[in-house]
Amino acid sequence: MRNIKLLIEYDGTNYHGWQRQLNAITIQEIMENMLFRITSEKTPIIASGRTDSGVHALGQVANFKTTSQIDDISFKKAFNSLLPKDIVVKDAVTVDDNFHSQHYAKSKIYRYCILKRSYPSAFDYRYSWLIKQPLDIDAMKEATSFLIGTHDFSSFRSSTCEARDPVRTLIRLDIEQDRDMILFYFEADGFLKQMVRNIIGTLVYVGNGRFKPITMKTILENKNRTSAGPTAPPQGLFLIEVKY
Amino acid sequence: MRNIKLLIEYDGTNYHGWQRQLNAITIQEIMENMLFRITSEKTPIIASGRTDSGVHALGQVANFKTTSQIDDISFKKAFNSLLPKDIVVKDAVTVDDNFHSQHYAKSKIYRYCILKRSYPSAFDYRYSWLIKQPLDIDAMKEATSFLIGTHDFSSFRSSTCEARDPVRTLIRLDIEQDRDMILFYFEADGFLKQMVRNIIGTLVYVGNGRFKPITMKTILENKNRTSAGPTAPPQGLFLIEVKY
Repeated sequence: MRNIKLLIEYDGTNYHGWQRQLNAITIQEIMENMLFRITSEKTPIIASGRTDSGVHALGQVANFKTTSQIDDISFKKAFNSLLPKDIVVKDAVTVDDNFHSQHYAKSKIYRYCILKRSYPSAFDYRYSWLIKQPLDIDAMKEATSFLIGTHDFSSFRSSTCEARDPVRTLIRLDIEQDRDMILFYFEADGFLKQMVRNIIGTLVYVGNGRFKPITMKTILENKNRTSAGPTAPPQGLFLIEVKY
Repeated sequence: MRNIKLLIEYDGTNYHGWQRQLNAITIQEIMENMLFRITSEKTPIIASGRTDSGVHALGQVANFKTTSQIDDISFKKAFNSLLPKDIVVKDAVTVDDNFHSQHYAKSKIYRYCILKRSYPSAFDYRYSWLIKQPLDIDAMKEATSFLIGTHDFSSFRSSTCEARDPVRTLIRLDIEQDRDMILFYFEADGFLKQMVRNIIGTLVYVGNGRFKPITMKTILENKNRTSAGPTAPPQGLFLIEVKY
């Protein structure tokens, strides 16, 4: 059996997230169906983690086992000739038998994009959260400092999050401005369900003055989802990279 | 009567270009329908020029006459609350009675995007032309030098182009690289039908070695469309700015 690692890019707009569901179309289901057409094997494709409905990926990693003799480059080409245009295999490589895209992941990088202008964008509405009101970037940067490090992130997990342990290590949370976009880069050893979007919603409350930066510390210590701000919409979120 | 100038952005993917057509949905038709809902006046909205089916705009300019007393900012907001998400009014300003978005245009800037990589993009496939083969950027730059200035551009006009005079002044044709994208910026006092896309198709023939850079000079002098390269696909083309 070969173990093949895929690097995948997808526009999540038209999908109910990565993970197979009974009554909704997902990226995993489409990829597994295409793999079946390529190899005639019914094989699960395991990703580094789920992405939610409407969330995008520039660097999702997944792997699958196969007895197929098709070489790596031909696998990549076969996927791309069959997949819809909004899902692309950027790379396919045969890796060590033990490699597991979820268990071996050391950290993940997510990017969230806020579009900060007074009118919508005909192009970026699928890939950003439009905010028209002023945002104090310095206040938001100050608030992020309380989140860096190893913490119980219960205040920022979805009520439907199934993770047993709510402790994660946030390695990096940088805020960059690029013209009318505010880009937030998160790197952590793992993320709880909707953790990035809940932190973004809370940071926006800091940016618009509803919360003081120091309030972020209190919210984190409360370990209670109701203390934090709202959940930011999914379309601004991209899984950028999975590190192994 | 007031004369209102609009700055418009649109994703052309789902439209048959700007100009009204009998049996196809166009941006002009949608905008005029929304204007009627705002003012109850049946008024033409005149753009600086047509854009073809599938071509995008970041800075299309248009104008219309109205007896409405709605202020400029409210016009902008009313349009954006009614328009589909892929058409956005960036600005609405009352201007001099004489202003005419087409006749007063001094020059236009178009950008064409080639995505230069070995696999497709899940995001940019609507906004670029994917080219996998190597392209010699220096050769393409050399070829552009023959096009700058005032010339008869008959070799690069569509056979269905209705312009009486094929002479145009190409002020600028710059090629820039931004990661895996090659961006071509065209500025001219006006463009013949499909002129940018026909020049791009010919530049790609230079880039891949099928034509020598000097061949561009011969093609221009031939004043014959059949000498030039193919028409590049529409989705890489953006109308960036109209200067007055």
